[in-house]
Order: sequence, then C-alpha cells, then structure tokens
Amino acid sequence: MLPKESLVLRSRVRLARNLKLVPFPHRLESERARMLVKAVEEAFYVSKAMEESYDTHRMWELGRTELLVAFEKHLVSAKLINNSDISAYIIDKDEDVSLMINEEDHIRLQVMGRDLNLSALYEKASKIDDLLSEKLNFAFDYNLGYITACPTNLGTAMRASVMLHLPGFTLTDRIGYVSQALAQMGMTIRGIYGEGSQAEGNIYQISNEVTLGMKEEDILYNLRDTIDKLLDEEQDHQRKLLNEFSLEMEDKIYRSLGTLMNARLMTSKEALYHLSLVRMGVETEVLKDVDMELIDSLIINTQPGMMKRAYGIELNEKERDINRAKIIRSIF
Amino acid sequence: MLPKESLVLRSRVRLARNLKLVPFPHRLESERARMLVKAVEEAFYVSKAMEESYDTHRMWELGRTELLVAFEKHLVSAKLINNSDISAYIIDKDEDVSLMINEEDHIRLQVMGRDLNLSALYEKASKIDDLLSEKLNFAFDYNLGYITACPTNLGTAMRASVMLHLPGFTLTDRIGYVSQALAQMGMTIRGIYGEGSQAEGNIYQISNEVTLGMKEEDILYNLRDTIDKLLDEEQDHQRKLLNEFSLEMEDKIYRSLGTLMNARLMTSKEALYHLSLVRMGVETEVLKDVDMELIDSLIINTQPGMMKRAYGIELNEKERDINRAKIIRSIF
Repeated sequence: MLPKESLVLRSRVRLARNLKLVPFPHRLESERARMLVKAVEEAFYVSKAMEESYDTHRMWELGRTELLVAFEKHLVSAKLINNSDISAYIIDKDEDVSLMINEEDHIRLQVMGRDLNLSALYEKASKIDDLLSEKLNFAFDYNLGYITACPTNLGTAMRASVMLHLPGFTLTDRIGYVSQALAQMGMTIRGIYGEGSQAEGNIYQISNEVTLGMKEEDILYNLRDTIDKLLDEEQDHQRKLLNEFSLEMEDKIYRSLGTLMNARLMTSKEALYHLSLVRMGVETEVLKDVDMELIDSLIINTQPGMMKRAYGIELNEKERDINRAKIIRSIF
Repeated sequence: MLPKESLVLRSRVRLARNLKLVPFPHRLESERARMLVKAVEEAFYVSKAMEESYDTHRMWELGRTELLVAFEKHLVSAKLINNSDISAYIIDKDEDVSLMINEEDHIRLQVMGRDLNLSALYEKASKIDDLLSEKLNFAFDYNLGYITACPTNLGTAMRASVMLHLPGFTLTDRIGYVSQALAQMGMTIRGIYGEGSQAEGNIYQISNEVTLGMKEEDILYNLRDTIDKLLDEEQDHQRKLLNEFSLEMEDKIYRSLGTLMNARLMTSKEALYHLSLVRMGVETEVLKDVDMELIDSLIINTQPGMMKRAYGIELNEKERDINRAKIIRSIF
C-alpha cells in the first residue's frame, strides 16, 4: 500500500479580503467594481517579475468554455462566474496561485499545492496578502478580525481545504459518519465540485468551517491533524476491503481498467467512477504499472469544459463522450 | 463483414432407431437394457479400424463431472444422463460422431460438423445406419417409417439442427418473430442447451420439427434453405445496427473485450454475454485480431462442467468463476 499522502489530490488555502468603505460586490455598481479590479491589479503587479509570472483574466472578456475550464481546474468559483460582468482573476503560470476579484468578497486569494503541507500554502498566501495590504486598505476590526460579505467567514477569513480520494469510506458506506464527526470539530466535507455537488469518483473536499475565535495556525494544525487520522482510517478500510474481498476488489479494479482502455463512448460521470477504482488500485498496489499523476490529470481533463477546450469547438454531448473515451484510451 | 457461414457454430444430423420386439428404454428392465448396449457395440465394432477410431462410455461407469462435460460438448443429451443406469454412448476421437444407446430411443446416432453442409452429415449418418442394420433388426413400418418412442419422431426419425449466433435478431428484438415464422414451416428454434434453455450468448439451435410424410433430403434442403435466408437477414440486422449505432455497437464490443481481458471473477452466463458481443465484433470485422475459433472454444470451455474437468476437482462456484476468468484472460 502506498503512503497515505497518495490519497491527497490537492490542498488549498484561501483568504478573503475586502476594501474598507467600498460596498461588497453584490451591492457594488458595475463601473466601480471594474475600477476595483484595476486597483487590485495595481497593488499586485509591483514588479517586472510579478508581471511575467502572472496574468489577469477579466471574466467579462472570456467565452463560456474558458470560464468552464477555469472552474473545472478549481481556479475560479461558481460565484465568480455568476459575477462575470464585474469579476476577474489573476493567475500564475503554474496555476498554483489564484486571486479572484469581486467574487463574494472583493478579493479571494487562494494558494494551491499537491500535499498536506498547509502551513507552507498559508505562508505563501500571507506574503501576497502583505503585498496587497501595502496599497489596499483592508476592512479589519480589532475584535472581529477581517470583515467579510458573509458572516461565516468573519475573523481569519481563511478557508483551508484538502481534496481527498476516499473510496474506502465510500465503499463501506461511512461517509455520513465522517461528515458528522467533522461537523463536531468545526470542519465540513463536500463533493469534488464544491457545495451541493455529489462526491463523484469518491473524491471529497474537507475544509475548516470555523473562522472566528481561532488563530490561522491553530485552524491549519487541527485540519491537518484530523486529515492525518482520517487517512489512516481510510487506509484501514482499504486494507480490510482488500483482505476480506480481495478477489472482488481486484475484479472491480481490473474491470474498470479494462473499460477505460476499451470504451468508445464515456460520460464524465462514468469516467470518474472508473478512474476512482483504478486510482484505488494504484493506492493499494494492486496495479503497479499505472501512473497516479496520469489518473489525476484525467480526472480533471475529462470534465466537459476541458473536453471542449481541448477540441477547440463546442462539441455536443456525444462528441464529448467519444473524445473523452479516446483521450482515456490514449493514456492507458 | 465476414461471410454468413461465420454465424454457424455447428450442425448436427440425428437419427433415432429402435430394435424390433424390444421394449423402448423407459419400459426396459436394467439387465436387458445393458445387454442391448452390448448388442449395439457388436453391430458397430466390425473392424479394427472402427475399434481404433471409437470408444464406448457406459454412463453407469462415469462420474458426475464427466457426464456434465459430455453434455456441455453436446455429445450426450440430458435424457441420456437421466438414464445413466442403463445408457451408454460411442464416440469417435474427433467427437464428430456420437451414438447414444438407451436414450429415449434405443439408438440415437448423431453426426456433427461445423458448416451448413447437412447433406454430407446425413450421408455419413446413413452409412453408419446401414452398418448397424446389417446386424440389428430395426423397427420399421412401411406406412409410418421408423418407429420411435415418441410419436413426434415417427417417419424419418431424423432431426437436423444447426447452432447459430444471432445477435442481430436478438438486439433488434426479433427472435419472437423468427420463432413464429419457423413454426409455420415445421421448424423450431431453441436456446443453446436444448429445450427450455435460455438463449444465452445469443446462440440458438434451429431444427426441423416435422419428421413424417417427407423425405430426409427434402427436410434437409428446406432447413438449409431457410437458414440461408435467415443468415442473410441476420447480416442485414447486424449491418443496420452498425450503420445506425456504429459507435454504440463498437463501444459495446470493445467494452466486452476489455472485460474479458481484465475480469478476475466471471460467471458462465456473463462470459457468454461478452463472448457473444466479441464474436459479433469478429463477424462484423470491427475486431480484426481476434480468432473466432478461440471464442467458440471459450463458449464451450467456460461452462461449469468443463471448468470442473479442466481443474480436476470439484470446484465451488467462486473458484470456478476465478478460473473461468483466468482461462479467458489467458486466451485474449
């Protein structure tokens, strides 16, 4: 069995910031909102190096497909797309740092990584936060902390989340129990594409719910600690499944591999189902010659928007299913 | 698309004969029945060549697994197994000729082949019939023809049957219509393992129902002619499916191939389902590198009895499913 870190798909630390005396985006008129985009850009692009490493995308200048792709890559949120008349995002070449402007809050800064090192992500976010606050006057209350559009984010205004593959909990039908336990610790668990989305491919996001009354470092420590324990338990479930139903599990895993290697038509939902089982095959070392990174890239690259971008045209559903199957076959 | 003959798995011509003045097997006491076995052997083994080419298997000397294997290879009938206290069969090395003794009739002689040349099979059967009648006195009535235990066989006492793969008729839900049309022409259609058995793997047996009032040659000509037309229609259905739903069909065919190549557990029913789709892939030349004979051998060799014999022990169901999947993987 691979080390438990293999169950982590990506991590993210997000800070929300708002400018003093400026209405929140939902009450901000168009013109002023677009001026705010400009002001954030000016605070951000302070050097040639910054200009070379980052790009700004104004949502009102983008096509539907580009918006969808950015969403599927977790670079922008559904809310930012809803606000696309006034919103924008700044992104680095590696797509590890994204600064959303005029989302729910004026600024949503997120830093992403591929392991559980949440402190490193927070540090990186803090530096950008410091840079911005040199020129921007953030709304901050000595008692409440950072002021946010939604009171659930008040305080640290920090949300850290980790995307995990939890097939063991899912197959043994224990996600409900995890959800309850996390809620009691001020954390929450959701499906792959955020609130309300189903956990397709057994991929979940776990994040802190509490933002008020705790220091950032403590929140991150708790989250990491909890996830550490959760991953131990996930591995126990996987081990148990493989001991008690080794043949049935191997059968499921290999059938999924066979289907991915041979299908001529595949929906994104079915792709996630099989990719999850094959990923579990790699995690448990049932499959030894399959590259985990390729699976993870397929999990993202076979989503509808990615499919549209890859083929440069507005594909219909069936054409997407054809090309999705083709991409997957070419990888395996 | 391969020639329509590729849809034929095997053909068979069967003659029923009974000895004059001897009660039919269901009214024959054990001792006399076993003496009858001996008498048939004496009439049959008239030369050294015959002795070298054929073997006699007395059913009361065989184990359960051997009985089941012979059944799955269509060498013996369920009835012969039911009578195994008094029944026997003589078989050639190639397993193309089988002579069942004390089935429903005293003698059931069957000659098998792999194409539609029913006349050749009938000729071969006739020669053996002539040989036997030199020493055995067969019950024959000038008006009725050969006398048989069941009146439905009276007359020629000949049943010719052809085993066909008809996925096109099945997928377009037209087997009911075929069945009705055949009935009107004095023919019948059944599943792969005889009366009452389901058409698993889309494999059917078509045979003449009428035995009385027609010459053998005419019966065989009609059957062959009808099957010829049926196979043309089957190919039309396959062509239509592949034109209208080419991707969906290819997808189905390749998924079945992928499942056969990867599964770790497989029931005989599921194996037949996938083997049928892969066979259709070969018939329609969607799959070019798959050997039809290997598919056909798997259709037989993955049945429960064959599995038991291949592994020499009384496997339980799960062990059979494991080994079946293993055999199939080793072939593809």
